Amino acid sequence: MQSFDYMTPTRLIFGKGVVEQLPEVMTGYGKKVLLTYGGGSIKKMGLYDKVKELLSDFEIYELSGIQPNPKYDPSVLDGVRICKENDIDVILAVGGGSVLDCSKAIAAGAKYDGDPWDLISYKVKAQAALPIVDIITLAATGSEYDPGGVISRTETNDKIGYVDPLLFPAVSFLDPTFTFTVSKKQTAAGCADAMNHIMEQYFCEDSTLLNDGFMEAALKSLMINAQKCLENPEDYTARAEMMLCCTYGCNRIYSLGNSQSGWPCHGMEHALSAYYDITHGEGLAIITPRWMKHILSDKTVDRFVKYGINVFGIDASLDGFEIAEKAIQATHDFFESMGIPMHLRDVGIDESRIEEMAQHVADNEGLENAWAPLLKEDIARIFTDSL
Amino acid sequence: MQSFDYMTPTRLIFGKGVVEQLPEVMTGYGKKVLLTYGGGSIKKMGLYDKVKELLSDFEIYELSGIQPNPKYDPSVLDGVRICKENDIDVILAVGGGSVLDCSKAIAAGAKYDGDPWDLISYKVKAQAALPIVDIITLAATGSEYDPGGVISRTETNDKIGYVDPLLFPAVSFLDPTFTFTVSKKQTAAGCADAMNHIMEQYFCEDSTLLNDGFMEAALKSLMINAQKCLENPEDYTARAEMMLCCTYGCNRIYSLGNSQSGWPCHGMEHALSAYYDITHGEGLAIITPRWMKHILSDKTVDRFVKYGINVFGIDASLDGFEIAEKAIQATHDFFESMGIPMHLRDVGIDESRIEEMAQHVADNEGLENAWAPLLKEDIARIFTDSL
Repeated sequence: MQSFDYMTPTRLIFGKGVVEQLPEVMTGYGKKVLLTYGGGSIKKMGLYDKVKELLSDFEIYELSGIQPNPKYDPSVLDGVRICKENDIDVILAVGGGSVLDCSKAIAAGAKYDGDPWDLISYKVKAQAALPIVDIITLAATGSEYDPGGVISRTETNDKIGYVDPLLFPAVSFLDPTFTFTVSKKQTAAGCADAMNHIMEQYFCEDSTLLNDGFMEAALKSLMINAQKCLENPEDYTARAEMMLCCTYGCNRIYSLGNSQSGWPCHGMEHALSAYYDITHGEGLAIITPRWMKHILSDKTVDRFVKYGINVFGIDASLDGFEIAEKAIQATHDFFESMGIPMHLRDVGIDESRIEEMAQHVADNEGLENAWAPLLKEDIARIFTDSL
Repeated sequence: MQSFDYMTPTRLIFGKGVVEQLPEVMTGYGKKVLLTYGGGSIKKMGLYDKVKELLSDFEIYELSGIQPNPKYDPSVLDGVRICKENDIDVILAVGGGSVLDCSKAIAAGAKYDGDPWDLISYKVKAQAALPIVDIITLAATGSEYDPGGVISRTETNDKIGYVDPLLFPAVSFLDPTFTFTVSKKQTAAGCADAMNHIMEQYFCEDSTLLNDGFMEAALKSLMINAQKCLENPEDYTARAEMMLCCTYGCNRIYSLGNSQSGWPCHGMEHALSAYYDITHGEGLAIITPRWMKHILSDKTVDRFVKYGINVFGIDASLDGFEIAEKAIQATHDFFESMGIPMHLRDVGIDESRIEEMAQHVADNEGLENAWAPLLKEDIARIFTDSL
């Protein structure tokens, strides 16, 4: 078991109707609020009006139009400018992980005199950040319970995971009913994203009985509950349990004491969505089984055996490699069963930039130090296998 | 799934040698330290000298002799007095859960003008508390990661669980090597305590696949690792995993979204150790299987079936009640296998005060509202069955 230093100070307020507590919670952080959100979905569902009504005593500024794979320019830059010009006290992010990720970069940038990219690229360490409160409307990234955000810079094809303990949300409101209107496509992609977060922690050299059981339970729960959500989008219990499984995704609680895996699928997928702006969870779903197949070896097989038996109930009496291969196929089949397109070509990616993307990943993601090390050739092979 | 409002701001610094970071961590809280500890064990293992050496630049006051089932008088009262007289900045608790529990009551009492019992008995809500740092030397209570402490007042046979969000430790140092010298008796009692914390959250009306899997994994991990610790007290990996399973015990992370169980075994055991000052974990181990047997019914059987199959691997094709009864027997047998005395008579408790204790529990613990409601007659019956 590995040593660790862990803290997650975020307050989770979870359940139907909890957003009624918003004014009371926000009062603790000040009167001048930057409200951040994406497209029109929070307006369509009535949440935008609800928030404005609840915060009628606050001075609200707005940053809208934050996109999936949120962009440094214009979203982060605009948000920082609004915060500085108006002396904002607190950011209220309403939406999915992209809105919240973008808001984290804004929170740090608002308290920094230079170019916010200095912070995101780790050239400069942030000294302070605005407090962030969020209302999550999509179960997927776990950004509501972690100190990181992923920001894309289009002109350089960079997609960087920016992590700093200053960026934990102060309070996350999680109302499963706000996810009732999430589309089948986004429900499936969110499930795949959350499952991959867990796999990125599960497939490593050194784990514990405790963490393995916790993660296997979360994977099974995600599969069962996502299917229920797809069948009946207003199944409260299924939406709620899926939401909590996602929330735990990236704050390390699933794997305290585990050795590092290197998060290889995220490293590779970041290139795909930086170059092609695809849906992150779909990119992960496509890559994951090909990555698994590529790294299956004498060294890794035992983890796949455990995964296959405990998550998919594969017959433990079979040969190890046979169990592993069945587990990899079952992973693929589950993603496919949710309606996820399982080939890069299905999401508009062909072979033309594979070498370039593989080089970008090899240069930037440190995957040569992953549990199963990946060099440029491995990455290109996995991309090609995913076509 | 139930609504919840959850936050655990404590920082966990976990691993061999982490206590070297103590001076750096303590500097954040001030120079005047109240060092709290129990008997001589931290001196015998060299930790007392180590801490004094690490904190040679600090002004240290001491409160020693804190007992298991820590006492309001003299420990809490003495600690509060020292803090007030010397304007203490921070409490450093070194020891097991009792030392830390006592330190939490002192931390609140030090910032309150009246009788600290007003706070512990919930007559007055604390407005502030001193920060607490701890170094845990026993894997058991989880006090290092929760906002509660249990305080005994001898003259009234009260043993009260005092909980307030102000009482989360700021930082908990967890070095598994500090538990190498824990006796077999205390290792077993710690395991039983931690297992019961989980059972108190597992046996309820409404749970999730996620929480069930997490808790079942923790129960299995505790059983396997405690046995390893008993066989080889210096098995680092086993001590480490047992420690983390214990740490999660009482901060609700095992059961976010579950309905309330009422914590019946703790309610009953608090009377036993208040009246007879027995080892808390042993009291729990004795009561738990008798409580299980007493509440087994058509209403509760399905939870016991799940527990029996997933924790003990009992044949799922058997009749439900047969599985439940086997699971209860397996629980008893596991505790016994660790060398725990499994009858109240073994720990010096006879029938003479059972009625009085049962009345005390019925009057104070609210167990009529537990998942499986317990009235005075039920409590007396469980005590009698445990003799």
